[in-house]
Amino acid sequence: MKNYTTLILAGLVIVLATTLVGVLMYIKNQPAETRAVEPLTEIAAMEPDSSLWGVNFPNQYDTLMKTQTNNTDTTYAGSSQFSWLERDPRQVILFAGYPFSKDYNDDRGHANAVDDVRATARLNLNDEDPKHTPATCYSCKSSDNPGLWDELGMEAYDAMTFNEMTPNINNSIGCSNCHEAETMRLIVTNPALKEALERQGKDWTTFTRQEMRTVVCANCHVEYYFQGEGKYLTFPWDNGTKVEEIISYYEEIGFKDWVYPETETPMLKAQHPEYEFFTAGSTHYNAGVSCADCHMPYVRDGANKFSSHDVHSPLLNPEQACGQCHTDTNYVIERVASIQQQVAETKIDTEDAIIDAVTAIKAATAAGNADAALLDEARKLHREAQFMWDIVSAENSTGFHNPEYALETLAKSANLARQAQMLAAQSVGDTTLLETGTYYPAEEVVP
Amino acid sequence: MKNYTTLILAGLVIVLATTLVGVLMYIKNQPAETRAVEPLTEIAAMEPDSSLWGVNFPNQYDTLMKTQTNNTDTTYAGSSQFSWLERDPRQVILFAGYPFSKDYNDDRGHANAVDDVRATARLNLNDEDPKHTPATCYSCKSSDNPGLWDELGMEAYDAMTFNEMTPNINNSIGCSNCHEAETMRLIVTNPALKEALERQGKDWTTFTRQEMRTVVCANCHVEYYFQGEGKYLTFPWDNGTKVEEIISYYEEIGFKDWVYPETETPMLKAQHPEYEFFTAGSTHYNAGVSCADCHMPYVRDGANKFSSHDVHSPLLNPEQACGQCHTDTNYVIERVASIQQQVAETKIDTEDAIIDAVTAIKAATAAGNADAALLDEARKLHREAQFMWDIVSAENSTGFHNPEYALETLAKSANLARQAQMLAAQSVGDTTLLETGTYYPAEEVVP
Repeated sequence: MKNYTTLILAGLVIVLATTLVGVLMYIKNQPAETRAVEPLTEIAAMEPDSSLWGVNFPNQYDTLMKTQTNNTDTTYAGSSQFSWLERDPRQVILFAGYPFSKDYNDDRGHANAVDDVRATARLNLNDEDPKHTPATCYSCKSSDNPGLWDELGMEAYDAMTFNEMTPNINNSIGCSNCHEAETMRLIVTNPALKEALERQGKDWTTFTRQEMRTVVCANCHVEYYFQGEGKYLTFPWDNGTKVEEIISYYEEIGFKDWVYPETETPMLKAQHPEYEFFTAGSTHYNAGVSCADCHMPYVRDGANKFSSHDVHSPLLNPEQACGQCHTDTNYVIERVASIQQQVAETKIDTEDAIIDAVTAIKAATAAGNADAALLDEARKLHREAQFMWDIVSAENSTGFHNPEYALETLAKSANLARQAQMLAAQSVGDTTLLETGTYYPAEEVVP
Repeated sequence: MKNYTTLILAGLVIVLATTLVGVLMYIKNQPAETRAVEPLTEIAAMEPDSSLWGVNFPNQYDTLMKTQTNNTDTTYAGSSQFSWLERDPRQVILFAGYPFSKDYNDDRGHANAVDDVRATARLNLNDEDPKHTPATCYSCKSSDNPGLWDELGMEAYDAMTFNEMTPNINNSIGCSNCHEAETMRLIVTNPALKEALERQGKDWTTFTRQEMRTVVCANCHVEYYFQGEGKYLTFPWDNGTKVEEIISYYEEIGFKDWVYPETETPMLKAQHPEYEFFTAGSTHYNAGVSCADCHMPYVRDGANKFSSHDVHSPLLNPEQACGQCHTDTNYVIERVASIQQQVAETKIDTEDAIIDAVTAIKAATAAGNADAALLDEARKLHREAQFMWDIVSAENSTGFHNPEYALETLAKSANLARQAQMLAAQSVGDTTLLETGTYYPAEEVVP
């Protein structure tokens, strides 16, 4: 009898032990994000210090920190901070009279945003009137912003100068720019984005999580301008987010970023309109793909599954980024290369056309006897052509985020630039203004 | 003992009967094309009468015959034989002085090819000199051709007039244009294709079956010209099959299709360059998709699986055509619509630019005092711009076969057309030649 009891008990021990091991292995193998997390540290609302969030989310934090040093170039762009003005000297001409003609480096990763905005020669922080650089320039650079916007309101924030704001800005882009501390859900933190969506009749709190995995990027990766004397950060989306709709908005409010020297053209500078560009009917967007799907793909650390926060070009980790959907990533890489080459070549042709227009408008303006209406029309088309080109050029994908839109927009731009050149010649009745040129070798831009 | 024997025998009968039924069902469920076919009828080599092939391949033949009446339009094109000149009157201007300005209907299905080529007003078969229309115009229209080329040689065939050849042509496009009767394998039948490939160092007999499912379409769906007095059918591929490579070929041999009236431009007309367009790095071609995969998808007749020979736009049977690879065909249809709209709109802009160039070159030519070198350069750019546009326009997919190539090519075309206009103005020093216009409403072309 005693033997039987021992046997039964031993059997029970084995069964229970096996079951326990099985349950533990099951839990261990669950992707981290679907497991209920007991926070190790309580995170304050809008906490600017990402390292505190990192106690609870070490993988996300560690990968975010990689953006500080993982700054690698791809064929057509990258984040090594190379100079666009050296690579493509046409841009020195295209941005003449504007700070971008003096300093235009490709951007490094998120963790360098504060350092890099302070270092750029564009801001002229030491010039005689530092007030002309508003605090608004910090809007996309720091995880301190959500707290500051909450505390000061965006109007007061933007009314300060850049130098006045500097002591408040201690952290580069981080967790609080996209996440709500209490729930970790993705949120709109930039008041300008919230307001632009509201003016379009949209309420971001009704968006799905997958939609938010694109919309949070629009906290920064958008076209914007500083409205009025208070330099109030504003997205020009009231007529829509396509390039012609943005131009019509700027036209209606009579906005210009700068006046082109010697042509007197009221110019527009495109910022980093990835959101508008990608969502303008691109095949990936229409198929339901989000920014984060490609730029923050799910990766594994042991049994832990998490979204990489080392945001960079998917060309640097195509197996993780593209391989989630595409079985043959070599095919994808070749495809991207082919599209980017087509866009880069068409971009160069367009730049040459705009420079021809600039040269002609300068000459017509200098002549002093131009037909004012024709010359003004030439300037208007120069303004539109260059903004269209810039939407493609400033957008960080060499067209890949929306290839057809890129090429369609460049086709329009070059056509308008040529018409601007012709109008300038007409305004002074001088066909010597119709010279065309190719200004620099294309090899630097299209290797 | 007897009972046992009976039982064993009965058992054996059941086992054998079940096995037999299984084997028969297996054979019945095999796709027809993978089953060894015992021909019902012996087909002679290069047999022109497709109905005889149809005895052995009734499904293929029946679907081929559907191309006679299944002539449905899509949004941007189709096969109802509508007039391009009515839909887009810009083309009357663009083809001025050439038969395409008098008669340019979209093509009906394969089974109508002979009727339609005889009916087109382009051939002027009843004019005073019917010799100017060569037999070569039958090259892509009839299943009689493989036999005639074999019997006469292509040189003698092409040296005949269209009217002389007419009695030999009794069948529209059919089986013998792509298949070898003895083996049913796909073959190059057009000597011009064989020769063009050879000059590129390619031997079609080494191609895979999947490659041939694209290459046989190049028996006809290509850019070609009639070489010399003998009107010898020739593909201009010696420098490559991209549009600039074709232009450089025509430039080297000094070829023109016609001279544009009042501008004296030596013009080029693009034919139906689907093969060159699709293979110029399109995403579908690069992914290994063949023409037949989309235009002749596998369909079923009961348990019979066969490739539909009712060749037409995949937009008319997207579940069969696109659904073989794409799970969400509604997405595909929207995607095609979006791309075709972008291409159609960019096409219209380009046409307006070319018409502006034509108007300016006419005026400069009429002035009589133009700088000859500048005016000739204007004509050269007009020629190139219009051929680039035509490669996109004549190609039957409104850009979808290769969207980036279409938009890139149109961007170049409009830019060149504007430069042609400017050169014309420079050649006479007259800025009044720089007028621009939009010539007809776009709604007919871009609904």
